[in-house]
Amino acid sequence: MKPVKPTLIVDRQKVIANIAKMMRKTESTGIRFRPHFKTHQSPQIGNYFKEQGVTSITVSSVEMAAIFARHGWDDITIAILVNPLEIDEINRLAGEIKLSLLVDSTGMVTFLKQSLQHNVDIWIKIDTGYHRTGLENHRLKDILALSESVTQAENLRFKGLLTHTGTSYGVQSVTELKKLYQKTVSTMNEIREYLKRNCIKDIELSIGDTPTCSVVEELYGVDEIRPGNFVYYDVMQLALGSCREDEIAAAAACPVIAKYPQRNEIVVYGGAVHLSKESIIDANDDKIFGLVALPEKDFRTWGPSVKNTFVKTLSQEHGIIKTEKDFLQKINAGDILFILPVHSCLTANLLKESTI
Amino acid sequence: MKPVKPTLIVDRQKVIANIAKMMRKTESTGIRFRPHFKTHQSPQIGNYFKEQGVTSITVSSVEMAAIFARHGWDDITIAILVNPLEIDEINRLAGEIKLSLLVDSTGMVTFLKQSLQHNVDIWIKIDTGYHRTGLENHRLKDILALSESVTQAENLRFKGLLTHTGTSYGVQSVTELKKLYQKTVSTMNEIREYLKRNCIKDIELSIGDTPTCSVVEELYGVDEIRPGNFVYYDVMQLALGSCREDEIAAAAACPVIAKYPQRNEIVVYGGAVHLSKESIIDANDDKIFGLVALPEKDFRTWGPSVKNTFVKTLSQEHGIIKTEKDFLQKINAGDILFILPVHSCLTANLLKESTI
Repeated sequence: MKPVKPTLIVDRQKVIANIAKMMRKTESTGIRFRPHFKTHQSPQIGNYFKEQGVTSITVSSVEMAAIFARHGWDDITIAILVNPLEIDEINRLAGEIKLSLLVDSTGMVTFLKQSLQHNVDIWIKIDTGYHRTGLENHRLKDILALSESVTQAENLRFKGLLTHTGTSYGVQSVTELKKLYQKTVSTMNEIREYLKRNCIKDIELSIGDTPTCSVVEELYGVDEIRPGNFVYYDVMQLALGSCREDEIAAAAACPVIAKYPQRNEIVVYGGAVHLSKESIIDANDDKIFGLVALPEKDFRTWGPSVKNTFVKTLSQEHGIIKTEKDFLQKINAGDILFILPVHSCLTANLLKESTI
Repeated sequence: MKPVKPTLIVDRQKVIANIAKMMRKTESTGIRFRPHFKTHQSPQIGNYFKEQGVTSITVSSVEMAAIFARHGWDDITIAILVNPLEIDEINRLAGEIKLSLLVDSTGMVTFLKQSLQHNVDIWIKIDTGYHRTGLENHRLKDILALSESVTQAENLRFKGLLTHTGTSYGVQSVTELKKLYQKTVSTMNEIREYLKRNCIKDIELSIGDTPTCSVVEELYGVDEIRPGNFVYYDVMQLALGSCREDEIAAAAACPVIAKYPQRNEIVVYGGAVHLSKESIIDANDDKIFGLVALPEKDFRTWGPSVKNTFVKTLSQEHGIIKTEKDFLQKINAGDILFILPVHSCLTANLLKESTI
């Protein structure tokens, strides 16, 4: 069915294939697959994971945990440091499902010891170089002290060490991505060995970012992975080398509202409130906000991206596509173009209510 | 009441003052004030306009027009070129309210002549240099031909010429903004004179962007203005010189989840899905995603922005605030910080369901 306004179209076959491919990397290794659901935030996409045997998931907010708990998921990690202001909702969830939380300070452990009404699993967040949150990996004594404070709390089950290698988004090649995976795994294992030597037992390691998990053929060295973006991939991942273009599984269908042959530009109804303002600099040094493709199979999917054609600017509701004469001539107001997003997590978040 | 997760806080007094100030610029001139509602998209904020006597509004999508029509607004301009795929909803609206539409091609006029079931007002979109949509201002013959095709259509009422001076966002000083207003007004009046000489009657001129309308003391030279952002303003407008900081009327209240004295950084729960990825380069050459202020009056408003403190990066749910030692020492997990957004339209769109 032809969409009449900006709509997120998810290619179901590609989603299922992306899930299967990531699962194969863990199957023979015994590594737990705990996909991050922040990318899709969709109970329907969640079902595709469930059908392939996934039982544990990651989310990035208490709100998202509550949504997926309502849809039957009962083993959820909230992969953001505990927000003490949401303790009431955390307590409600902890009474219903197996909940895992992240901490990186003894202050937070003290707060949880006093405030939690049910047992929860606790991961210590380690900063392996991304410098967002977590205890820096070289602060071994602090990590030990925090681990001890968790193991000593009756209502907290010490689960292990967790990191997010967000630096993978700044890497220039697949070789570097593989090295980064190796380095993260080594760093995390060194911390585990140190804790073991200091009598902390049963320490799991959890990592998870789409770029490194995508390029390593068979994952190793950890107990759990938490990638999320791979379910849809996007133009940023394509640029990093972590996916092929035909693996990008979500795109925004946008109506054409005008074309301007004088400047080889097409304007679509589809702007920053649909796609997000995320951009990358492409190989030609152009700042781009998306690639462009033509509809296929009754708007249920799209073809290969159009050569020398990209979204060059976005305002609130408008997208301006830079293209060439031949393509422009074929397109008219009322046509639908598919925009492959730069960052599918943000596009899916904005268009989640419109998903087909 | 203390918010527990990222929440848009609107300072009602500032909103009312911003509306009053913009209205004063038109009162003695007879210029119609048709504020753009895309910034707030809120029926409640709409009421503040209504209470001050506003009766006609602008929106940027058919969907938004439908929402405000349901809330009693009966004179609405949809300030984006007609999307032919939404003709059914356009027809429904045109049967209920006084609807104004934008066109910039004879193809679109032909389509509307054939498809509209009710009379609508038609504005011809002029491109005065922004190069998003519209007929370029120097193409006088094309503008005339399009005006004639509108006047000849029975179901279309030719209303006039409309432009959006989006180039005002690239200007470096208030003096330049005032010159840009003058230039836009001159350009639009020249086109009107040309059309008049060619027997087109009753031509109104409509302009509207917050930066120029904010800096010109008393507006002149047009029949209608359509600014929108001024209702909230934001850090981008502050940088342009079109508002004072204490006129910024909307901010995102975000819970602090961690602080890192080693790097003078505070992390809040509040990321790209709350604030948007819009950024500006500030006077110190830092890329910033927002300014930071402390709560006041039981979280109903906030104080002046904190010195040498700004949001330096955003991921999906996290915001990292760069600050100085003194401020960092005062802040703890569980506190609320207010983020003054770079682009309030996008932040309000993301947080509209959370508004207090």
